[in-house]
Amino acid sequence: MSNLYNIVKRCPETAARLGRLETVHGTVETPVFMPVGTQGTVKAITVEELAQMETAMILGNSYHLYLRPGVEPIARAGGLHRFINWRGGILTDSGGFQIFSLGGLRTIDDAGVTFVSHIDGSTHYLTPERVTRIQNMLGADIAMVLDQCPPYQSPYEAVREAVARTTRWAWRCRQAHQRPEQALFAIVQGGVFEDLRRASAAELTGMDFPGYAVGGLSVGEPKESMYRTLAATVPLLPEQKPRYLMGVGTPDALLEGVRLGIDMFDCVLPTRIARNGRVMTAKGYLTIRNAVYAADMKPLDEQCGCPVCRQYTRAYIRHLLNAGELLGLRLTSYHNLYYLAHLMKEIREAIRQDRFGQYYRETAPGLTKYNGGVD
Amino acid sequence: MSNLYNIVKRCPETAARLGRLETVHGTVETPVFMPVGTQGTVKAITVEELAQMETAMILGNSYHLYLRPGVEPIARAGGLHRFINWRGGILTDSGGFQIFSLGGLRTIDDAGVTFVSHIDGSTHYLTPERVTRIQNMLGADIAMVLDQCPPYQSPYEAVREAVARTTRWAWRCRQAHQRPEQALFAIVQGGVFEDLRRASAAELTGMDFPGYAVGGLSVGEPKESMYRTLAATVPLLPEQKPRYLMGVGTPDALLEGVRLGIDMFDCVLPTRIARNGRVMTAKGYLTIRNAVYAADMKPLDEQCGCPVCRQYTRAYIRHLLNAGELLGLRLTSYHNLYYLAHLMKEIREAIRQDRFGQYYRETAPGLTKYNGGVD
Repeated sequence: MSNLYNIVKRCPETAARLGRLETVHGTVETPVFMPVGTQGTVKAITVEELAQMETAMILGNSYHLYLRPGVEPIARAGGLHRFINWRGGILTDSGGFQIFSLGGLRTIDDAGVTFVSHIDGSTHYLTPERVTRIQNMLGADIAMVLDQCPPYQSPYEAVREAVARTTRWAWRCRQAHQRPEQALFAIVQGGVFEDLRRASAAELTGMDFPGYAVGGLSVGEPKESMYRTLAATVPLLPEQKPRYLMGVGTPDALLEGVRLGIDMFDCVLPTRIARNGRVMTAKGYLTIRNAVYAADMKPLDEQCGCPVCRQYTRAYIRHLLNAGELLGLRLTSYHNLYYLAHLMKEIREAIRQDRFGQYYRETAPGLTKYNGGVD
Repeated sequence: MSNLYNIVKRCPETAARLGRLETVHGTVETPVFMPVGTQGTVKAITVEELAQMETAMILGNSYHLYLRPGVEPIARAGGLHRFINWRGGILTDSGGFQIFSLGGLRTIDDAGVTFVSHIDGSTHYLTPERVTRIQNMLGADIAMVLDQCPPYQSPYEAVREAVARTTRWAWRCRQAHQRPEQALFAIVQGGVFEDLRRASAAELTGMDFPGYAVGGLSVGEPKESMYRTLAATVPLLPEQKPRYLMGVGTPDALLEGVRLGIDMFDCVLPTRIARNGRVMTAKGYLTIRNAVYAADMKPLDEQCGCPVCRQYTRAYIRHLLNAGELLGLRLTSYHNLYYLAHLMKEIREAIRQDRFGQYYRETAPGLTKYNGGVD
């Protein structure tokens, strides 16, 4: 197999790089933002619409798909791509994050995790081997190891144990992994403790995975803390391998992540806030349900070229959301995904043209408006 | 103004006819089914998608739009077409049906109706003049008079009074109507009483409206009763004017209505049942949530050429609906609307080619499977 990842261009001023991730479902140009298709669909959006906005790769949640519809029907359809009719790239997470945050956790030890389904209360037992087998069957282009992601503000000792377990589990996932065309990425844990990040990165890079994620961030810590940890962690990762910052999707954090050398991002943010009536614009978040937009004939974002902004007014979209119309959720979701896709495209162009440093200096101050994060 | 409606072809065997309804938003070829865009959107569907399936005209509900977002913001946007970004035809109903079925009705007399909003409990007073003014402001291609639609199984005397009031209100609506490019249709009432239908039709056709609707059917009566009333009513309407059967959208009733000489239909059925996981197929209704479809790799309807059926499996759509995913509602809604659009196109082609009688005989037996109506 040729290289999974190739660097095309490096920013002369920052750690940003332009790269190409080669999958059997096409080339993914990085830095890339991956919309999240939790249950086999990016919420409210079709695969044609994702292609329209030049989405190269989406994320699927193994935890959700394992519980519903189950892995069997997906495997029988020929894998997740065929099941959901998506021709681009797919990355599946391991389910670890959801097991530890959503499921009623019963027990965890080195062997594996017993948890209770958030859907029907049924009990499930997952091990690194089973999680890997599930992802093999889903057949995404990139799979993730089972990791243990401790909650924000966990004490040092708990994070240290999670790092050690994540390393042991990563090894077992790698041993169990079977599809050569599917790349298995490791996940660096360690919370905001730099020595634990160093330990985690050292242990995992020693196993020579084809790609590395930074997990355990964007879990509630202040952004400065995330950026500081990221700045300390990224240089510990192999230069020639893709780097993936999990769960990050605010415009300011995407820009900062790229600057620090991250290639891949995912987050439910653009679609989740869209369903709450919040959209991203050149001027920051806009809460479209506000009464002030009742007769506003402007598009959601006056600087946006997406089909929603070319065709619909704030007054109409506000009406749709207030009336509980599904079309409202479609339009805001589409716009937010387009906004991030467009931002990432601008970032890639800036790196390609050796002007990312300048782009960063011009753009970052305007993006501080996103500092509040999701409400 | 040139003729609103022109007959292109008459079926030599039945009362079916092929016609052209000329509006400033294009020509609507009849017989036509109009999807319902209750609150300014056909639920879950974009205007591009409606155009894709060759939708020529949609229906907007004055009652719903009057209550939310209100007539003002729509008028300020330049009318309903501009507000919702739809370039095809629009027909608005008068709101009468909703006032009498949805609103907490307070009082009704000849002057008008006082009712309570189903949204916020506020009290509203509407008269034929106000309803006409509202529709003038919404600016649809076709507006409807305010009528009184008595519930199914109303006693003769109540229906007789409703007919008389509907006639008086029709006259007042006509007097109040102001936009020459907007056609105002009258509505024949009379329940299942043929003498009252005759009275209603005689009174209304005497006023020479540009089009006539048959109201007060599809309100719970058995289909045979509806067909019998329709067969008795349609011949009472002017041959050269368009005839609109309100609230009908099951495939069998569409076919039967066309045979009896109806040109226009509307119904929430295709989108409403879609959201409940029920789709129309060449083999009848299919309840996609059923467990039997969990691993079914066939399309919703094996004989359908719509984009949903070309791209998605029953197993996937079932999963989406079971998981509460908005995409599921989009796909089933699209398919059902396409199914009816395709049926109406087939019907028009059959009339055009002088073979509607044969088409009817071949198709009607298969459509009896829809006899159960909506569940």
